Amino acid sequence: MEYQDIITLVQDEIEQISYNGHPSELYEPMNYMIQLGGKRLRPVTTLLSTQLFSGDIKKAIPAAKAIEVFHNFTLIHDDIMDKAPLRRGKETVHEKWNNNIAILSGDTLLIEGYNHFLEGKYENLSSILKVFNQTAIQVCEGQQMDMNFETRQDVTIEEYINMIRLKTSVLVGGAFQIGALVANAKEFESELIYEFGVNLGIAFQLRDDYLDCFGDPKKFGKQVGGDIISNKKTFMMLKALEMDSTGELQDIISTKVFDPEEKVESVKALYKKLNIDALAFDLMNEYYAKAIDRLHQIESLEDAKNKIIRFAEDLMRRSS
Amino acid sequence: MEYQDIITLVQDEIEQISYNGHPSELYEPMNYMIQLGGKRLRPVTTLLSTQLFSGDIKKAIPAAKAIEVFHNFTLIHDDIMDKAPLRRGKETVHEKWNNNIAILSGDTLLIEGYNHFLEGKYENLSSILKVFNQTAIQVCEGQQMDMNFETRQDVTIEEYINMIRLKTSVLVGGAFQIGALVANAKEFESELIYEFGVNLGIAFQLRDDYLDCFGDPKKFGKQVGGDIISNKKTFMMLKALEMDSTGELQDIISTKVFDPEEKVESVKALYKKLNIDALAFDLMNEYYAKAIDRLHQIESLEDAKNKIIRFAEDLMRRSS
Repeated sequence: MEYQDIITLVQDEIEQISYNGHPSELYEPMNYMIQLGGKRLRPVTTLLSTQLFSGDIKKAIPAAKAIEVFHNFTLIHDDIMDKAPLRRGKETVHEKWNNNIAILSGDTLLIEGYNHFLEGKYENLSSILKVFNQTAIQVCEGQQMDMNFETRQDVTIEEYINMIRLKTSVLVGGAFQIGALVANAKEFESELIYEFGVNLGIAFQLRDDYLDCFGDPKKFGKQVGGDIISNKKTFMMLKALEMDSTGELQDIISTKVFDPEEKVESVKALYKKLNIDALAFDLMNEYYAKAIDRLHQIESLEDAKNKIIRFAEDLMRRSS
Repeated sequence: MEYQDIITLVQDEIEQISYNGHPSELYEPMNYMIQLGGKRLRPVTTLLSTQLFSGDIKKAIPAAKAIEVFHNFTLIHDDIMDKAPLRRGKETVHEKWNNNIAILSGDTLLIEGYNHFLEGKYENLSSILKVFNQTAIQVCEGQQMDMNFETRQDVTIEEYINMIRLKTSVLVGGAFQIGALVANAKEFESELIYEFGVNLGIAFQLRDDYLDCFGDPKKFGKQVGGDIISNKKTFMMLKALEMDSTGELQDIISTKVFDPEEKVESVKALYKKLNIDALAFDLMNEYYAKAIDRLHQIESLEDAKNKIIRFAEDLMRRSS
């Protein structure tokens, strides 16, 4: 199937997801969250991966839905924990309803995710669920680490990379690996495509961090400089703290009362001075190259592989 | 296996559950909750049911663990929603740690429950998970209904029974049904034992409501009269409101400032006057009889059946 057709198919399938049940306080938030939009990157990866291993794309659809539904569960619960008012420009579930409803509709969505896997009638269901469960638990671990980092002053770059690996990248890897399992790929090949996905996910997150700082405010979906304002311990922040011998950055982030725009400009200027933007770019490219290397180790039709490279390139070109 | 040995086996197996992982903020609350104790009723039912259908009890252990772990996940999240300070006389997870940690460690526990099912290497995994998912979703529906009822003034007795069926009884039914599936019981038999469990669960909850009001304070684990103090819309409260033509009960529950002990005594006196205690007892016995009827429809060894009846009798004799 052509690349664009896969994207259209995924969007159509996700659009059709609608849970019917009682009470409505439980089901409305679930459907609201799923239909809030989003890039649907994860289900697309599953289908691309099934195709890469010459599997039946149609067969991968329930697994792809399960992964997207799981992702939406994490968004509902993360938004409660982060006290986020908005998601994709709309009210978050806990804002529109309340915290209790957000907890419970998130829980239900997580269980519905498992139901989608059952719909697939996979003969290797237990292998698929083993990968899924491990991934899901790691996503929770990553979220807990992210929360821990907010109050810790001794976070290392290594710890930060490990946190984003768990919080966001393993799910990309898992989505690819599950696509491979649907196609009954060999175990070592399913592991290679997992590693491709994880490394691509890290590269993508590093790019997102970079754009949060240096992105074009007109194109970047979120507030540019948000990470700087909230003293988020990103690679750039941690690297700059490590390199800045003057203590200037430490002074800036310790200041409790500040003009946000001024703070963003000062930190950006410091990043530029310390060459942090180039270092962030290099690190991103390092993970991207690692991803592509894993992909090249897989023996499959060049055509299917090229579609995955196109997906990866698209992902890294996005401005939001 | 003898009845008492099954209970000992379950307690030993649950005691051995310990999740190891990083960060500790995620894993400590999970282990804390699981090891907080409790009656372990649900995993015992699974093993009893596997034995009833001549299955291998050892084979049922992972499924029994999964169900107990799921139950503990619901307790962590319910306690957040109910703002409960204590659980089994100890601090609840969100009190001991915080709400965010309670949300996330609950989520992780739910996923670990699915891992236990995988440990079982069940050849009919998808049938087992189908029952489990449906049960799990219904438990969430019941919890949402329970929350809705707090602010609704037009709850019917039928709605109340349906709420307790979903919130507490289907999990007892599901635990029995999954035990049957582990033993490869016929489908209609697995449904009969499910119905046995659901009706037993309703009888048990009605008894719990009764004890909350008329139980011996020395033996009942919780504060006697707690439901009355909080105007909980139990069968007894709803039935009394329906029968009380004087409006006395309505007056009592509308009063915002009251002496709790006095309120409990007044409502109990009114229940006695209206014969509500006897009606509650009758309804409980009706569900219990329905449960036993379903059990008798199952063809199996009398000895194994008698163990299940002993379990049911024990359950209904408990004073806490």
